[in-house]
Amino acid sequence: MIVVMRTGVKEELVDKVAKKLVENGFQIHLSVGVERTLIGAVGDKSHYMDLALEAMEGVEKVIPILAPYKLASREFKPDDTVIRIGDVTIGGEEIQVMAGPCAVESREQLLEVAEMVRERGARILRGGAFKPRTSPYAFQGLEEKGLEYLAEAREKTGLLIVTEVMDTQKVAMVAQYADILQIGARNMQNFPLLREVAKCNKPVLLKRGLSATIEEWIMAAEYIMVSGNHQVILCERGIRTFESFTRNTLDLSAVPVIKELSHLPVIVDPSHSTGKWKLVQPMARSAIAAGADGLIIEVHPKPSEALCDGPQSVTPERFSSIMEDLQKMAVAMGRTI
Amino acid sequence: MIVVMRTGVKEELVDKVAKKLVENGFQIHLSVGVERTLIGAVGDKSHYMDLALEAMEGVEKVIPILAPYKLASREFKPDDTVIRIGDVTIGGEEIQVMAGPCAVESREQLLEVAEMVRERGARILRGGAFKPRTSPYAFQGLEEKGLEYLAEAREKTGLLIVTEVMDTQKVAMVAQYADILQIGARNMQNFPLLREVAKCNKPVLLKRGLSATIEEWIMAAEYIMVSGNHQVILCERGIRTFESFTRNTLDLSAVPVIKELSHLPVIVDPSHSTGKWKLVQPMARSAIAAGADGLIIEVHPKPSEALCDGPQSVTPERFSSIMEDLQKMAVAMGRTI
Amino acid sequence: MIVVMRTGVKEELVDKVAKKLVENGFQIHLSVGVERTLIGAVGDKSHYMDLALEAMEGVEKVIPILAPYKLASREFKPDDTVIRIGDVTIGGEEIQVMAGPCAVESREQLLEVAEMVRERGARILRGGAFKPRTSPYAFQGLEEKGLEYLAEAREKTGLLIVTEVMDTQKVAMVAQYADILQIGARNMQNFPLLREVAKCNKPVLLKRGLSATIEEWIMAAEYIMVSGNHQVILCERGIRTFESFTRNTLDLSAVPVIKELSHLPVIVDPSHSTGKWKLVQPMARSAIAAGADGLIIEVHPKPSEALCDGPQSVTPERFSSIMEDLQKMAVAMGRTI
Amino acid sequence: MIVVMRTGVKEELVDKVAKKLVENGFQIHLSVGVERTLIGAVGDKSHYMDLALEAMEGVEKVIPILAPYKLASREFKPDDTVIRIGDVTIGGEEIQVMAGPCAVESREQLLEVAEMVRERGARILRGGAFKPRTSPYAFQGLEEKGLEYLAEAREKTGLLIVTEVMDTQKVAMVAQYADILQIGARNMQNFPLLREVAKCNKPVLLKRGLSATIEEWIMAAEYIMVSGNHQVILCERGIRTFESFTRNTLDLSAVPVIKELSHLPVIVDPSHSTGKWKLVQPMARSAIAAGADGLIIEVHPKPSEALCDGPQSVTPERFSSIMEDLQKMAVAMGRTI
Repeated sequence: MIVVMRTGVKEELVDKVAKKLVENGFQIHLSVGVERTLIGAVGDKSHYMDLALEAMEGVEKVIPILAPYKLASREFKPDDTVIRIGDVTIGGEEIQVMAGPCAVESREQLLEVAEMVRERGARILRGGAFKPRTSPYAFQGLEEKGLEYLAEAREKTGLLIVTEVMDTQKVAMVAQYADILQIGARNMQNFPLLREVAKCNKPVLLKRGLSATIEEWIMAAEYIMVSGNHQVILCERGIRTFESFTRNTLDLSAVPVIKELSHLPVIVDPSHSTGKWKLVQPMARSAIAAGADGLIIEVHPKPSEALCDGPQSVTPERFSSIMEDLQKMAVAMGRTI
Repeated sequence: MIVVMRTGVKEELVDKVAKKLVENGFQIHLSVGVERTLIGAVGDKSHYMDLALEAMEGVEKVIPILAPYKLASREFKPDDTVIRIGDVTIGGEEIQVMAGPCAVESREQLLEVAEMVRERGARILRGGAFKPRTSPYAFQGLEEKGLEYLAEAREKTGLLIVTEVMDTQKVAMVAQYADILQIGARNMQNFPLLREVAKCNKPVLLKRGLSATIEEWIMAAEYIMVSGNHQVILCERGIRTFESFTRNTLDLSAVPVIKELSHLPVIVDPSHSTGKWKLVQPMARSAIAAGADGLIIEVHPKPSEALCDGPQSVTPERFSSIMEDLQKMAVAMGRTI
Repeated sequence: MIVVMRTGVKEELVDKVAKKLVENGFQIHLSVGVERTLIGAVGDKSHYMDLALEAMEGVEKVIPILAPYKLASREFKPDDTVIRIGDVTIGGEEIQVMAGPCAVESREQLLEVAEMVRERGARILRGGAFKPRTSPYAFQGLEEKGLEYLAEAREKTGLLIVTEVMDTQKVAMVAQYADILQIGARNMQNFPLLREVAKCNKPVLLKRGLSATIEEWIMAAEYIMVSGNHQVILCERGIRTFESFTRNTLDLSAVPVIKELSHLPVIVDPSHSTGKWKLVQPMARSAIAAGADGLIIEVHPKPSEALCDGPQSVTPERFSSIMEDLQKMAVAMGRTI
Repeated sequence: MIVVMRTGVKEELVDKVAKKLVENGFQIHLSVGVERTLIGAVGDKSHYMDLALEAMEGVEKVIPILAPYKLASREFKPDDTVIRIGDVTIGGEEIQVMAGPCAVESREQLLEVAEMVRERGARILRGGAFKPRTSPYAFQGLEEKGLEYLAEAREKTGLLIVTEVMDTQKVAMVAQYADILQIGARNMQNFPLLREVAKCNKPVLLKRGLSATIEEWIMAAEYIMVSGNHQVILCERGIRTFESFTRNTLDLSAVPVIKELSHLPVIVDPSHSTGKWKLVQPMARSAIAAGADGLIIEVHPKPSEALCDGPQSVTPERFSSIMEDLQKMAVAMGRTI
């Protein structure tokens, strides 16, 4: 890191900062300029945040040089992480499509959707049993009953199951049923939950928070990895901006950026990010063209009767059309689907 | 709500929407214009989100007319809510200052700060025992030991205690020690946590999420209130914007807006919002001038040795100066402090 | 539009609003509910903004139902606008690539780039003669000399020329040289400039403002169209958000949204939006997959010697690779390039 | 500045960067770490942006240490700039209130408002003769006729005149009538306009752009100052964020930040930033408490008949009440009004 001292600062203040750095195991390097004195410091980047250097007299600002994450970084592990669950791989050559309803609503609804998305090429079934809803008056999910239906759908179709967990007290229960545990956007920085999901030996789908920077998002993955679970799949799902025509703004640049900074696989959610079923198809294509390893798409047999997020769910017919488009995209990208 | 149908939509599609609304207990009102047909619907606003009307054929958009919250609204309860804990009131004529370190670091540090802020006029002591940190490598708090020190500080000084809880599994423990339970910005939409804190009969300090709209923030309060606890204090602490000179952008307009929409008390955190101790004093004054019912301020005996958020903590001397300014502000506003 | 009156409003205030609407040529429709009285009003949407209804006593809010633009809307003109300049079409089946340096730096540089991008398939040459720079100390462009070089490059290569104009006093001069006049992001709401470029009978490339909503962007196009020039090409170039890893956040959802709301062609600038040459290639592919009609890409023979925006300029080699990728994308999308 | 080289970069690439810096007059300083090699460079900060170092092979990023502005900086001129026009000072001990209608609508309207705001303590009259409107169908201002009315109002009341100019071709005309030239938010980076207003020897009121960082805003002031006019008044008027309850988000932290970084006076516009007359009063108080040197407030005799921005205009009665509040705030702040 670089510590920038204020103009005309007294030497003793520079010495104090230097001393604190050395005491904390940093090697330092002084650079006295006409306008500013800089102190370069090399050492354990994971500790610098606790030093409160900005609070020391004479310090103008502290500029980090290295990224604050390690295990998730491309520098630490140059090769792509490929997550394998049975014969399904995420992060390899094959593009994976996770599809299903926003919420598990009933046994019939779920089995119908499961069968339908499997036929059209999806390998993983999505569906919420615990739903984070902005309103306490909205449908909150079928809870364990929903998990049972998901397990039944897996048995019937061979699809893998991805479903959200929101509470540390429910992690063990959800892990009994799910193949992939989903951390929703609102919980990206729910640190006790990140530590808890790390304990079960299952892949974790980590959605980007609505206002999370790419760095904070990777740091959230680092929380899971440092607790012993390296099977993290990142999911871009839109960030909050001033534009309100779409529900959120899908940040597709994040896909190649993640590929540069990290070795973890990254997928895209074109349903929640746009909030409109009409935009799911072009954004699904666009995500693959940006280099995403997969997609998570909301499909509902009758979107207008969905208990949750109907406006962004696509019909089975539309889903077929999306899968055809993705085939062409896979060819263009030299990948399979 | 108003349902706007697409241009040139067939009558049968309008009928379908109308029928669904009526079946769900809404009274409807048709308005056929040259360019658009509108369906006005009056009924239980808390249910409309589950209707998925936007997913019905022919629907262009659905425009809510009424706010989605009820218990927290000024319409429901026109008089200001005043929360009383012992002889301390929040939301009344008196301005309350909560002050203390970002994190409880040691028994000595906490007792020293507690004594010092009490002398200068604070009635409530803040201090984190569980700390949500962006990095897994940063100091995470003293946990229950920290809570014990807080309880000891209360006994010694008579100050009330406000401290954060992050995990549903720790709510009962934190509630044993704290007078006010704090929900941090990152957990504003941690719905299981909101329901859990509602169960203990203690006031809740609900910080605004980094990218939460005012409406979503009030909805989070509604989650707590609908679960039976009406003692909610809202806390504006800055929102995330493109401006990076300050840590976040303090949205002081939110103070009079909350006062208009809701009866709940609202305080301001000038420390986390700005991230810079130099800005705490002007923003503290500014918050009171905007009509806030109180402040929560980070104070540390030696900010440069703080284990957490030192750069935004003020020294005891600076805190004295802030309290003098607030005295003048209270006079200008016709309030006491 | 819908005028929502406050709860418990007196009848005479409702009457006043109704009267004002009728006097201004609106047909009205009253809907008296239990909680709110609504006044629906149908009439000339272009005038409602001048009515200041929100300032009338008893009015809670005014909700527009129809979009405020007309000439640019898909409703007004259902078929795609295809702009033809010689044998080049923009907005049709063919994808157009505009390429060239950020700034015209010298005759040699420009001719070299022009030849090079033409060989690789571009039909339109970009290059700034007037540069809007954040710093007054940065290179501001070669001005008319730059325009002359652009004209020479056109003569030598047959490429069309697109270049920016920033000042109403320079519109006539730039129009003498350019085939397409570019309005930069910072000038999207420079209304005198929009009116001035409308006067010359040349296509206008209208970049989206950094913080412009899609609606405001279309309204800026409407300014040009209402002044008599219907040849407007929209260009998405990233919006300003909290994410600072990329220079701006490329909003690719805007592409299908524009296609739904308007008949105008839309292209994408992957260079300015990301600010990093490494991201230009994936984002160029992604833009085409989203349905864009073309791209505008910064190419420089030696980016590290560029006088402007070198970090986001691609080398000739990289540009070849991008064009190969775009070929595959065109096939996948059923278009030509 | 600090140039951060990529991990494991070859020495010759470091040498190339070093050479380029030296050739451009920078003194350099090498720091070879285990993980990164850094090149510190000291020299003319105003030129570094043209070096395109990020485009050189091996460079990871370039981190500026010094602010890119000079004339506007507090370092360059430690004392507050106080602008004097007749016996009115802006930036000194006295708080100045500029008030008047959004747009000049008629001679009668303007004279009535002028008289009224003067009586209540304003010294400067605001009023737009040229209006930047999002819609081409909205009222665009009375143009020169409006300027004449403003001049007449000055003669009758002794108030100074501040009014907006949007087009380089109109600067000379507006300067004939106005005492202070206003650059609106949409034109903050209209660089030809900034250079043009710098030429007339009159103070310039520079509004912050909707998505301008504080640094970009100061750089816009630098454009005016470098062209020879040092009489710049900065005006915070809200930034664009995700929050849509208010028209924009008033960034009051910007006030003390500007005071730290620059010597220029700074005022606040509580009308445009909030878009709601109810919020004008609390935000006006709040701005003064934050340290602002003045306010610019929209006042209209009958807001519901205003041709522009009625919803955010206050009535004469409300304006009286605001002025009373500001009196108390001035006392609390140790200033006069």
